[in-house]
Amino acid sequence: MSSTYSRLKHVVFGRPLPSERLEHERLNKKTALAVLSSDAISSVAYATDQILFVLGGAIGMAAVSYVLPISAVIVGLLVLVGLSYRQTVFAYPNGGGSYTVAKENLGEMPGLIAGAALLTDYILTVAVSISGGVAAITSAYPGLAPHTVGICSLSIILLATVNLRGVRESGAAFSVPTYAFIVMMLVLLGVGAYRYSSGHELVQLTAALKVDPSLAHKHAGMSPITGFALVYLLLRGFAEGCAAMTGTEAISNGVMAFKAPAQKNAATTLGWMVAILAAFFLGVSFLAQHYQVMPTTSETVLSILGHHVFGGGPLYYALQYTTFAVLVLAANTAFADFPRLAGILANDRFMPRQLAARGDRLAFSNGIIALAAVALLLVWMFKGDTNALVPLYAIGVFVCFTLSQAGMVVHWQTTRDAGWVWKAWLNGIGAIATGLVSVIQLVTKFTTGGWIIAAIIPLIIIVLRKIHKHYTEFAEEIKFSGQSPINPLHHTVIVPVNGITKATSGALVYATTISDEVIAVYIEVDKRDTQRMMEEWDAWDIGVPLEVVPSPYRSILKPLVEFVENLRMVTPGELVTIVVPEIVPKKWWEHLLHNKTALYIRTAFLFKPNVVVTAIPYLVGHAYRLREWMEHDQYIEEDIDAEAAERKGGDSSSAA
Amino acid sequence: MSSTYSRLKHVVFGRPLPSERLEHERLNKKTALAVLSSDAISSVAYATDQILFVLGGAIGMAAVSYVLPISAVIVGLLVLVGLSYRQTVFAYPNGGGSYTVAKENLGEMPGLIAGAALLTDYILTVAVSISGGVAAITSAYPGLAPHTVGICSLSIILLATVNLRGVRESGAAFSVPTYAFIVMMLVLLGVGAYRYSSGHELVQLTAALKVDPSLAHKHAGMSPITGFALVYLLLRGFAEGCAAMTGTEAISNGVMAFKAPAQKNAATTLGWMVAILAAFFLGVSFLAQHYQVMPTTSETVLSILGHHVFGGGPLYYALQYTTFAVLVLAANTAFADFPRLAGILANDRFMPRQLAARGDRLAFSNGIIALAAVALLLVWMFKGDTNALVPLYAIGVFVCFTLSQAGMVVHWQTTRDAGWVWKAWLNGIGAIATGLVSVIQLVTKFTTGGWIIAAIIPLIIIVLRKIHKHYTEFAEEIKFSGQSPINPLHHTVIVPVNGITKATSGALVYATTISDEVIAVYIEVDKRDTQRMMEEWDAWDIGVPLEVVPSPYRSILKPLVEFVENLRMVTPGELVTIVVPEIVPKKWWEHLLHNKTALYIRTAFLFKPNVVVTAIPYLVGHAYRLREWMEHDQYIEEDIDAEAAERKGGDSSSAA
Repeated sequence: MSSTYSRLKHVVFGRPLPSERLEHERLNKKTALAVLSSDAISSVAYATDQILFVLGGAIGMAAVSYVLPISAVIVGLLVLVGLSYRQTVFAYPNGGGSYTVAKENLGEMPGLIAGAALLTDYILTVAVSISGGVAAITSAYPGLAPHTVGICSLSIILLATVNLRGVRESGAAFSVPTYAFIVMMLVLLGVGAYRYSSGHELVQLTAALKVDPSLAHKHAGMSPITGFALVYLLLRGFAEGCAAMTGTEAISNGVMAFKAPAQKNAATTLGWMVAILAAFFLGVSFLAQHYQVMPTTSETVLSILGHHVFGGGPLYYALQYTTFAVLVLAANTAFADFPRLAGILANDRFMPRQLAARGDRLAFSNGIIALAAVALLLVWMFKGDTNALVPLYAIGVFVCFTLSQAGMVVHWQTTRDAGWVWKAWLNGIGAIATGLVSVIQLVTKFTTGGWIIAAIIPLIIIVLRKIHKHYTEFAEEIKFSGQSPINPLHHTVIVPVNGITKATSGALVYATTISDEVIAVYIEVDKRDTQRMMEEWDAWDIGVPLEVVPSPYRSILKPLVEFVENLRMVTPGELVTIVVPEIVPKKWWEHLLHNKTALYIRTAFLFKPNVVVTAIPYLVGHAYRLREWMEHDQYIEEDIDAEAAERKGGDSSSAA
Repeated sequence: MSSTYSRLKHVVFGRPLPSERLEHERLNKKTALAVLSSDAISSVAYATDQILFVLGGAIGMAAVSYVLPISAVIVGLLVLVGLSYRQTVFAYPNGGGSYTVAKENLGEMPGLIAGAALLTDYILTVAVSISGGVAAITSAYPGLAPHTVGICSLSIILLATVNLRGVRESGAAFSVPTYAFIVMMLVLLGVGAYRYSSGHELVQLTAALKVDPSLAHKHAGMSPITGFALVYLLLRGFAEGCAAMTGTEAISNGVMAFKAPAQKNAATTLGWMVAILAAFFLGVSFLAQHYQVMPTTSETVLSILGHHVFGGGPLYYALQYTTFAVLVLAANTAFADFPRLAGILANDRFMPRQLAARGDRLAFSNGIIALAAVALLLVWMFKGDTNALVPLYAIGVFVCFTLSQAGMVVHWQTTRDAGWVWKAWLNGIGAIATGLVSVIQLVTKFTTGGWIIAAIIPLIIIVLRKIHKHYTEFAEEIKFSGQSPINPLHHTVIVPVNGITKATSGALVYATTISDEVIAVYIEVDKRDTQRMMEEWDAWDIGVPLEVVPSPYRSILKPLVEFVENLRMVTPGELVTIVVPEIVPKKWWEHLLHNKTALYIRTAFLFKPNVVVTAIPYLVGHAYRLREWMEHDQYIEEDIDAEAAERKGGDSSSAA
């Protein structure tokens, strides 16, 4: 059975890999752009939507006129953050994640804030990207819309499985979706721009029908919003649009994955990524404004633009498929980042140490499973609705931007490299700008989901610190301070017996092997059986004394515990081992037919001083004995030679 | 926490009772009649209903004219079975349950059939009696009808709780419901008969309204049933009415509960019981015929009669309450009988031995809990509907009647007591009659639920035999056949270490205590740590060799298993103990922060030859050490006196 399970495991997850294969696969610039930028570039699939959704809900189709200015501001911010992170690339050749930079330069608490924000962000990256990708599919095939949650769940489970196999097969294969998406976006924006410049009529295919009638009504009948209300509304739109900037930090985190000269290559790639993202985001917002696009709950901006520009032909479907693919790839980056961060936090003793262990395939298996589980939960809770998930998203990202850049300011002050003043200023301006945006994000999105993040990040920090406290205290407590402790102790062994069986005799042989002082204890539940037991024991005559302990209340445990306590009263400090035969039946249901006495005895003595409980497994119903001494001593002496001969004959595996 | 739990347990279930208090409380005839007859006599609350339901469904109100003749036939059968069991009373002074009588005289298989039938019957006694009792209440208060399942469940849980407390408080208290019911039935039948004989007009209170309109319609529009169809219909009515006979065997099972002369007293009481049951059943059927009563799904025959005869006043409510009380008492008898039979079967190794163990309060706790659980399940499945449950009921009872009486025939042939031939004939006629009824029951009720019983009884028998086979083989297998097996073995101890900590040093102290040959094993997951480990080990210099075992695939278990197998290759037959420190944190969530290495190692070696795994619990976060040697040996030597002094000071309990 065990071998069937491991064979199945090998088929699904692949054969185990030795630790040596952990060497990094170094990426060239083109591959790195594809692998590390998918998260950032794919944001154009949902960022413009968010601006239009928020503004459209308040001022109807008039929203469309604000989308390009807001996008331009965001792109300005993006360029600033890009320049700022370019400096991090050169300062942290081994990868400057927000947690590392904030912890090293600002201290533990800022580090933990960044860590907690990053953990939530990675989870949201999966949930948002997958639901965004599925939205691209359901926009093309509205009939699939009712199955949104199912398709999302399946995608997440598939991603987790692939990642549990490990990342050996990455690189080239991962470039395809990103470049396909880039090509399709270029075609969309190119054709769109051409149609616009050449004054072509709009392809008014289905757009008129797609506009939410309630929005049209609002547009027509509502009084215009002005003054502070308008400013607040535009800030909200800006905050939501900042979802476009998620993923910007990926390249600075992954400098060590680049081919030499790593830092220079990473900086160049970062530049390209920012340029592409900026161009696509502005392009989409421009076309959205030009075509008067208003997304609905059932169709995304990209899909509507695709319909307008391509008229619904094969190019339209290609756009939707590549959008789906790049978003799945974006989710995939979180499957690499989350377990790695969890592993770093575990090594720093802020998370359970199991998260630091690499599995058979060198992936951090526990982290991958945890991420998939929480992302699935989110998708189920929010029914796979991207527009409900995105408001939670960018807050944590901007908190990380801020802490990371603030950390860089301290970094430059400490290192005082050439030109450190200007570098510190650049990072400082970036930190202030993103810090301001963080506040805007939290305030404007607080009621639409921001409060969840505001509540969860402190909660995560409390848990991380509690875990750290436990590990620190634990390490302190088990620290060995004595000199040479290895003196054998005086030792009494107690064997509870309920009859003269092979299990009993096996336990007694073991007991006499580990100590010269062995006492057999018989718990008397029914007086009528005692006489027979004592007679049989005397007839056996093995030189081990039998103590009869009455149990007026029919419990086995209580009299045994009291017997051992009394023994320890007489000889304090005495070490006592209780050797219990443990019946291990062959079939699962047979377990129900035997009392779990060995387990109960273990539990009963767990908190008793200086008592060790040893269970001697006695396997029932197996064709051969695994513990020969349980038969009788003759067997061992006679059969050792035979067994040795057989063993030399090649049959070295003897597991059942 | 443990002490809060046991205090709560003592309040609900009572303090533990010593085994001596198991002596039987002997009952006089009056009390015995109340305690042992409640099951039988209470059947009148649902038996007449069943006849009318079956016939009424087919021939409408015409059914009423058949109810008295059918009842008369059943009473004839009842008297025959009563006389037959009177002989069992004298033959089995220690209680002649069907299982015992069938097994002793007919063999194992008939015994098991009787046992399986009895187990199902006891469960159905609880389900039918409780739902019948609740039907008496909902007949009086129709507003409670939607809560039927809830009230039934509550009653069963309450009964189980009372029975887990043990049966000390029985006797007198249990007489009240039975005698109150007998009095109310006498009043009902007396007033009803007086009204009839004095030619009074019927009290047509609500009866006209209560008749199911669909039945009236059937009566009016349907063609009369004749010939074979009528015979079959009457047989079905007869089969359902036989529910009246359930519980008849209770007195012959319980002879040992009577005061001396037990057998004579039991026989007299049996006579009274049969007489009362016969009179009540005939009386109810007579009045039902006279008043043209047709039960509905919401009102029982007894309730309708109560309305007719008493006109709905306090006497009516008294009738309903006493009906409920006597039926609860009837269910209670199953709570004594089922666990006792399960205990007997467990002692005969046909059921799990846990069912033979008496709990704190001397009750067979596991049997009581199992019975309550299955009865609850039945009540939920059948929504507490007596009329749906009864068809399952009498089949098993009649199978038991038949096997028990057939067993008595063999008994008389074997003992050849005075007048054995006549006695054998009487039991034989009883066996044939009840055997015939069993067949009628099975055939006529097969489609309405009888098939469930026909399927479940063989299934139970298969399970019982499988359990028996396991226990028999197990006893055979562990039977000790050697001579004097107590020779100490050669013994190597392996201690997996991952650093020099108190837990490690504790395990090493224990290891050197139980063997002279100790090897510490370090599993190398990361080569960078090995050098440091080896240096620290050499500096420690405790005279235990350290083996470094590389683990290229990062598993802890596999290299350890291979190391031990290699060791055994060199010295076959060698006994190996693996001593593992087991970290036991204080709080539940802290368990998640530590690998369960000790557990994994135990599991990995469970099926490996001649290996014993001993976990040394290391308690983290406790104010004091429970295993002093884990600190360092100095501690033990210095503090033993202090500890002994403290211990003498009265603090002998040291559990956390």
